[in-house]
Amino acid sequence: MERIAVIGAGLVGSLQAIYLAKKGFKVEVYERRSDMRKAKLSAGKSINLALSDRGWKALEGVGIAEEIKKVAIPMHGRRMHLVDETLAYQPYGKEGQSIYSVSRGGLNQKLIEVADEFDNIQFFFNQRCLDINLSSNTIYFQDETNNQQQSFTFDRVFATDGAFSAIRQRMMKQDRFNYQQYYIPHGYKELSIHPNADGSHKMEKNALHIWPRGEFMLIALPNLDGSFTCTLFFPFEGKDSFASIQTEADLLAFFNRTFPDVLPLMPNLSEDYFANPTSSLVIIKCNPWNYEDKVMLMGDAAHAIVPFYGQGMNCGFEDCTVFNQYFEAYAGDWNKTFSEFAKTRKPDGDAIADLALRNFIEMRDLTADPKFLLQKKIENRLSERHPDKWVPLYSQVTFSHIPYSQALKNGQRQDEIMAQVMNTPGIENNWDSEEVESKILSYLAL
Amino acid sequence: MERIAVIGAGLVGSLQAIYLAKKGFKVEVYERRSDMRKAKLSAGKSINLALSDRGWKALEGVGIAEEIKKVAIPMHGRRMHLVDETLAYQPYGKEGQSIYSVSRGGLNQKLIEVADEFDNIQFFFNQRCLDINLSSNTIYFQDETNNQQQSFTFDRVFATDGAFSAIRQRMMKQDRFNYQQYYIPHGYKELSIHPNADGSHKMEKNALHIWPRGEFMLIALPNLDGSFTCTLFFPFEGKDSFASIQTEADLLAFFNRTFPDVLPLMPNLSEDYFANPTSSLVIIKCNPWNYEDKVMLMGDAAHAIVPFYGQGMNCGFEDCTVFNQYFEAYAGDWNKTFSEFAKTRKPDGDAIADLALRNFIEMRDLTADPKFLLQKKIENRLSERHPDKWVPLYSQVTFSHIPYSQALKNGQRQDEIMAQVMNTPGIENNWDSEEVESKILSYLAL
Repeated sequence: MERIAVIGAGLVGSLQAIYLAKKGFKVEVYERRSDMRKAKLSAGKSINLALSDRGWKALEGVGIAEEIKKVAIPMHGRRMHLVDETLAYQPYGKEGQSIYSVSRGGLNQKLIEVADEFDNIQFFFNQRCLDINLSSNTIYFQDETNNQQQSFTFDRVFATDGAFSAIRQRMMKQDRFNYQQYYIPHGYKELSIHPNADGSHKMEKNALHIWPRGEFMLIALPNLDGSFTCTLFFPFEGKDSFASIQTEADLLAFFNRTFPDVLPLMPNLSEDYFANPTSSLVIIKCNPWNYEDKVMLMGDAAHAIVPFYGQGMNCGFEDCTVFNQYFEAYAGDWNKTFSEFAKTRKPDGDAIADLALRNFIEMRDLTADPKFLLQKKIENRLSERHPDKWVPLYSQVTFSHIPYSQALKNGQRQDEIMAQVMNTPGIENNWDSEEVESKILSYLAL
Repeated sequence: MERIAVIGAGLVGSLQAIYLAKKGFKVEVYERRSDMRKAKLSAGKSINLALSDRGWKALEGVGIAEEIKKVAIPMHGRRMHLVDETLAYQPYGKEGQSIYSVSRGGLNQKLIEVADEFDNIQFFFNQRCLDINLSSNTIYFQDETNNQQQSFTFDRVFATDGAFSAIRQRMMKQDRFNYQQYYIPHGYKELSIHPNADGSHKMEKNALHIWPRGEFMLIALPNLDGSFTCTLFFPFEGKDSFASIQTEADLLAFFNRTFPDVLPLMPNLSEDYFANPTSSLVIIKCNPWNYEDKVMLMGDAAHAIVPFYGQGMNCGFEDCTVFNQYFEAYAGDWNKTFSEFAKTRKPDGDAIADLALRNFIEMRDLTADPKFLLQKKIENRLSERHPDKWVPLYSQVTFSHIPYSQALKNGQRQDEIMAQVMNTPGIENNWDSEEVESKILSYLAL
């Protein structure tokens, strides 16, 4: 019998354990933290998750999509709060297409519950992975409750131990292992908007709210209890930055100047701001993701990305779907599955990393730009009339299962075309004309 | 009294220890290997070093340039061996400008000897640096002779422990520490051309020999004993690659086809090829290079580069010169020196990393291209006639002390100009005309 370890019982680890168990494998899941089903959900450092099609597909594969959907809040589009207190709106996709706000902790607990119902999945909590001996596939653990160390040897290891993976740390010392960790110049801080006294939301519930301000932005995602989880993405240094806000007076002056409509919604602003940590945002790329047919990095351990496309979890979940597809295509041949998955999935991890960074600029800057919003309107119109010819990049990423790397390429082509279209004199007035439409179609036919 | 540690007694560590000792500091140098003054120089994995102006300046600063020059062999230019067995030549600079072939081991031994003459420098060999506690600046060492561990706490640490620095490994875990390790798809293998029976060189002595072959190349640098140290830079995988050569027959067929003039000079080819290791080539970039005013990465620990510009050691030596300049400018203020050196020197490390990678393409491919050689002739002519207006990029990097980042920028400008010049019809015939010269000068004046 194969001895299989999953390192990390986070979102991707728990899901991958279920996929493996459903194939009949005996799976041991080792997690550094204590059993999160028993823990109070921690606040203060959790960007809300936005589940979209790739994530739903992976959850459907293990039969829990419907149950999760019941506690998820659909967000049909972006609601932009401009600095002059006017609002703008941009639907995410077509009628009926939404992304869904879910609680990371709640989803993780649910996945562990589902996994724990399998007789062939065993969880070991409080087990910190210290190191791995790659040649023997022996992993060294420390029990966080008593500091006792023990080691076990496995046939197969799935390292879903996150952006700071201990397994990857060891793989990094292998000759010809490429690795990059890049911290963007922005950090983030969680804030909150409490519910009304009657438990209702203080702003439109079914939208992702954005306050785009060029070099920085605030966003808000709805929660079931009527509150919003807000995140300020802000440079660490500079004129307007975490470094520039030292006192409550600094903070209130800054919000008054840049987010005037938020202040009345956040009586708890100062308290949240100075109590919650300032966290950094890292992009991690590495290659190869596998060590022979023994160790496979998945999720953030293989490809940590910035949160601006709402794809971190969706991409990690899709890792499980895609791995599973290869495993079936290769009739359970681990060697072929490991090497093919690592090779073909890697460009998709790179692509979504690049797309996510690019979407930060779109969210914080372009969504306040009327020309950008007009371009999106033109693209949406085209997509409705010619769904076979034009799928907006956002929809390819969010509402399709096209490989990310292909979506990125398609998007670059679309950008070139739309740059020409937007340069047409008078486009503001005839954007919905036959002329503009046929112009785009003729570019597409080139 | 400040307690100062230099970690690593390689080329940069030994030199930096001398610079510090000359300022009156007491310096402890910890080295993983045994005392290399007592060791036989190891062969098989050492790309010969090419000392040029930046390196000489640093050696002059500690008064050993003249002594080293006595055992260095000047190489006035590149001697290209084309596949049809014809030869081409390209001088490196002006009359009297050369780069110098030196033995890495010999130079390192000399630096340790010089350092050891200082009463205030103490060497500790066989001391492997295991880890550093950054908040206390405590370093953990293991004595390689008896596996005993000990730790010491320092005021200042200079980490010159190379591309796989243990100190940097710990800094990498700091929040917001950016890091990249990238292995190029090529590896290298050392080969050799033995002297003639009378001890003379089998090829022209005062040149760097290149066999440029597009995707790969062979180079040879002269040694004092009449031999040449040769290095084959070769893809790991592919049609012609380390992977494609498995047997002696493969090897001889490959050399016969691609390096026919080399075969008669290398009766020992098969023996060398199959005995010597195949080594990888890594580029390492990180930021910041310092931890507060306590730890400073220097040399390969901060910026490992590929060897194709002959600048790895020169850049590391220049680190010492530049650090010393800042230290004097800031009148011994460690805090200012650490932060300014780390900030302003980092773009130069990045620039030489990029230049070195680019020079690989130049060496292995362009040096076989008559048009490229013509361009270099035009640039050299211009440089001779207008030395104030045009210094070829190679000369800026090799024969000047212009910051690498500035040289890179200047080079990009020159490239743009030369691309236009080389497109002039008939340039092959009138390259040395007044017309071409004034055309370039007019571009420069733009």
